[in-house]
Amino acid sequence: MEISALQKERAAYQPKLPKALQGAVKIVEGAPTKSVDNQEEIKKLFPNTYGMPLIEFVPGEKANNKKLNLGVILSGGQAPGGHNVISGLFDTLKKLNPENRLYGFLMGPGGLVDHEYIEITSDFIDQYRNTGGFDMIGSGRTKLEKEDQFEKGLEIIRKLDISAIVIIGGDDSNTNACVLAEYYAAKKYGVQVIGCPKTIDGDLKNDQIETSFGFDTATKTYSELIGNIERDCNSARKYWHFIKLMGRSASHIALECALQTQPNICLISEEIEAKDLTLNDVVENIAKAVAHRAEQGNNFGVVLIPEGLIEFIPAIGRLIQELNDLLAAHGSDYKDLDKDAQRAYILEHLSKENAATFETLPEGVARQLSLDRDPHGNVQVSLIETEKLLSEMVGAKLEKWAKEGKYKGSFAPQHHFFGYEGRCAAPSNFDADYCYALGTSAAQLVANGKTGYMAIIKNTTAKTDEWRAGGVPITMMMNMERRNGEMKPVIRKALVELDGKPFKAFAANRDQWAMNTEYVYPGPIQYWGPAEVCDQPTKTLKLEQE
Amino acid sequence: MEISALQKERAAYQPKLPKALQGAVKIVEGAPTKSVDNQEEIKKLFPNTYGMPLIEFVPGEKANNKKLNLGVILSGGQAPGGHNVISGLFDTLKKLNPENRLYGFLMGPGGLVDHEYIEITSDFIDQYRNTGGFDMIGSGRTKLEKEDQFEKGLEIIRKLDISAIVIIGGDDSNTNACVLAEYYAAKKYGVQVIGCPKTIDGDLKNDQIETSFGFDTATKTYSELIGNIERDCNSARKYWHFIKLMGRSASHIALECALQTQPNICLISEEIEAKDLTLNDVVENIAKAVAHRAEQGNNFGVVLIPEGLIEFIPAIGRLIQELNDLLAAHGSDYKDLDKDAQRAYILEHLSKENAATFETLPEGVARQLSLDRDPHGNVQVSLIETEKLLSEMVGAKLEKWAKEGKYKGSFAPQHHFFGYEGRCAAPSNFDADYCYALGTSAAQLVANGKTGYMAIIKNTTAKTDEWRAGGVPITMMMNMERRNGEMKPVIRKALVELDGKPFKAFAANRDQWAMNTEYVYPGPIQYWGPAEVCDQPTKTLKLEQE
Repeated sequence: MEISALQKERAAYQPKLPKALQGAVKIVEGAPTKSVDNQEEIKKLFPNTYGMPLIEFVPGEKANNKKLNLGVILSGGQAPGGHNVISGLFDTLKKLNPENRLYGFLMGPGGLVDHEYIEITSDFIDQYRNTGGFDMIGSGRTKLEKEDQFEKGLEIIRKLDISAIVIIGGDDSNTNACVLAEYYAAKKYGVQVIGCPKTIDGDLKNDQIETSFGFDTATKTYSELIGNIERDCNSARKYWHFIKLMGRSASHIALECALQTQPNICLISEEIEAKDLTLNDVVENIAKAVAHRAEQGNNFGVVLIPEGLIEFIPAIGRLIQELNDLLAAHGSDYKDLDKDAQRAYILEHLSKENAATFETLPEGVARQLSLDRDPHGNVQVSLIETEKLLSEMVGAKLEKWAKEGKYKGSFAPQHHFFGYEGRCAAPSNFDADYCYALGTSAAQLVANGKTGYMAIIKNTTAKTDEWRAGGVPITMMMNMERRNGEMKPVIRKALVELDGKPFKAFAANRDQWAMNTEYVYPGPIQYWGPAEVCDQPTKTLKLEQE
Repeated sequence: MEISALQKERAAYQPKLPKALQGAVKIVEGAPTKSVDNQEEIKKLFPNTYGMPLIEFVPGEKANNKKLNLGVILSGGQAPGGHNVISGLFDTLKKLNPENRLYGFLMGPGGLVDHEYIEITSDFIDQYRNTGGFDMIGSGRTKLEKEDQFEKGLEIIRKLDISAIVIIGGDDSNTNACVLAEYYAAKKYGVQVIGCPKTIDGDLKNDQIETSFGFDTATKTYSELIGNIERDCNSARKYWHFIKLMGRSASHIALECALQTQPNICLISEEIEAKDLTLNDVVENIAKAVAHRAEQGNNFGVVLIPEGLIEFIPAIGRLIQELNDLLAAHGSDYKDLDKDAQRAYILEHLSKENAATFETLPEGVARQLSLDRDPHGNVQVSLIETEKLLSEMVGAKLEKWAKEGKYKGSFAPQHHFFGYEGRCAAPSNFDADYCYALGTSAAQLVANGKTGYMAIIKNTTAKTDEWRAGGVPITMMMNMERRNGEMKPVIRKALVELDGKPFKAFAANRDQWAMNTEYVYPGPIQYWGPAEVCDQPTKTLKLEQE
């Protein structure tokens, strides 16, 4: 199997560990905890895993070398560093007792239910150290939430004599990890469940979790590309680049990339929602910046757009909601109408406000909203090419202004969508170390008999050996939220906070970035070289922790 | 002005020079040269610049320190390393005589004609060393080909007391540099003109020019992204990624990226043309690979597509040609017809063969071919989303095969186009050194009184200090070709040679890459670290020079 020169050299990289995790550990327990909200409900739902203390590891003297088998699962979308979490788990397990075994369940949580697994061995794992991707054992989106799944999983757990399952995933997967932990605890099965915070989206973050892994590498990869495009933009001086960035439910990625690259415009969904802006407002704001730059002879620029934008625009959100209900109720008689009749039908049946919103949409988008539904009857927002929608509407507005004599300039848009380009990048030094430490921490939580915890690493803007390691009870991060019409206990998603330091730093500079050309070109992730270049955390993390 | 940590550290990088260029140079002249073809015609067109010898620089003792002002122009699309050519020019000029001056003409060849320029000073250039982009002085696509332009340029050349112009550009720009050199020589104006070989496309290449600058960095940047997508593809195991790569007239970029990343499929336009394949053949070949992989349970893959593909498919090329003529002749009565009538009109007026080809096209593409013409009456091929066209047609074919029971699998395509992401990346160590050496070589050609030469650097797969530097008479690379209906002297474009080593290395492995999953993940360009990782030339160059 051929591998690249970089893969070869990176395979030899030994991730750095915090002092506390370098040898045997001792546990320091804090006071009992409570959930961030809805304490009574959460407590009732998690009688066995609620209220446990925060845990911090400090250097200890004696390790638990009792024989221990462990199963690991990758859940959900890829994020750089997943293989290093598993390497951290593996190395710690083998250090505790060379007889210990690590099993990887294949293609996500479904592997546990369907008993698809491999044993992870030393030779095998060496091919995956410090690499991107989840291809070591694959990942999947099966949700572990039903009792028969838990029982089915137990069969293979018993067969392999597994003491604990480590689930590496986002907010939903960690919520489910906790449900599983609670179930096995209630049944007194003696099987522990530990979570690890993964997601490039950056929305699994709170007082306990400084950052989710993968965010660092993914945003640096996107920023490399945005910087390259900015440099092209500033050289050719004739295009407006509309760049959509992955991240459905929060704008952390767009915000971090903006802080790194200083584009002319970056939309933040949370702000648009908070200010109750319409699509027309958003378009007009962009068009104004285009017109203003044109006055200075600068018919070029860069706009960053978070993937989830459309759903955050309140008027569009309300329209989508009513359309979902309308088409679910009247799907059959609607389906056979022709295109124009469908449009008329929709306009007739929508509330006045939503009909007005519908009419402002370009034809293609209106059509997309009124046609494609996913199996659950929801509009497939990810199919809407927001970057093209916006540039088309901006172009139309500028044309109107040109006719009114209010705008003179040329407007030539280019479109990009970055997502798959960064989800499986080889982890940066930060993510390589962070993930390895998370894996090590998770193994220590298991070895110390814990369940219902998530592994955490703190103080991550300091040098690696000063990082602090431990665990947080997953219930501590939960509240009750409505999901598919039902109230459920879930880990609260971290959206961009408009009074948080990263957003404020952005907001303080954006007018200047819009009018002037102050692009910054971060370049590609470096693994060797000056620490300033290759060992820096994200701007978001630095601002939040300063 | 804020700059990134990488920019800061890279600014301090001192490009390495070949031994021959480290101090004063001496010239070694070869035998008189002749053009690659049409010797009589070319000689007649270039009486003053034809037949000059190849030049090689070797270490010398005494430099020409006569006062010398020089003008530099960036021409055409951006390519990584342009700023380093200018740095090489600048440093050499100042070393020869601190009184020497370097002027940069702004926004391309138009800057010479319109007298837009700046003087490049030490403080100014220091901001641009080892950076990507052409933003130092901008670039443009104005063609320098008319006598009044040459005369207009002379005015500013005289005013600034400039002895020579260095034009950094692709094949067309260097052809025009030679025309300008010949004109100034014929008029005995005493103004020298020197060219430098730039293009990310890699098609300015021949016995004298081993590679054009920018190709190394651009292909490494694209390969980073392709590798990341491959890793994602191999982790998620559910998408077919169709990736279009910049490069209109040759498939060097796609071929190099394929050699670096080993995708399942890479289309090479030159091969498709040579084998006279139809669009349907191309689609069927891809669909077969998809179906074959599906049989092994692998419903995922990666396809690389050169941007210029469509025009290389002979049947489509003939169709476009006839459509251009047809719509030019009958544009006005055609224009007012409605969509269906236009289609009928086209089918009626086309030759039988081209009508048949037209009918096989998906509606959207047929429409694009029959509508959008550029100002010269040509179809805008770059507007055709080849990656979507192919995946759509592959999907349709698979659906047909599924109905016939010949295919069982799922086919979910994703689309990407990489171009702007790499044209302005910060130059790799190779391009940083290569460009700096080209600039140094160009300055030495000027100081030694040469005109009508292109600066060249050879032996580029060896260590930098063993590289060989010199100049090649531009006429030596010319032949006569039909351009816009007229025979013109032009530098012969280098297409992918089907009996060349790079293509052969690809062809020998591609069946295996198609069926198995043998992805290689090159990762991002590294500037520091092991030489194996950060100082390697492209695979194409290595194969060609071995």
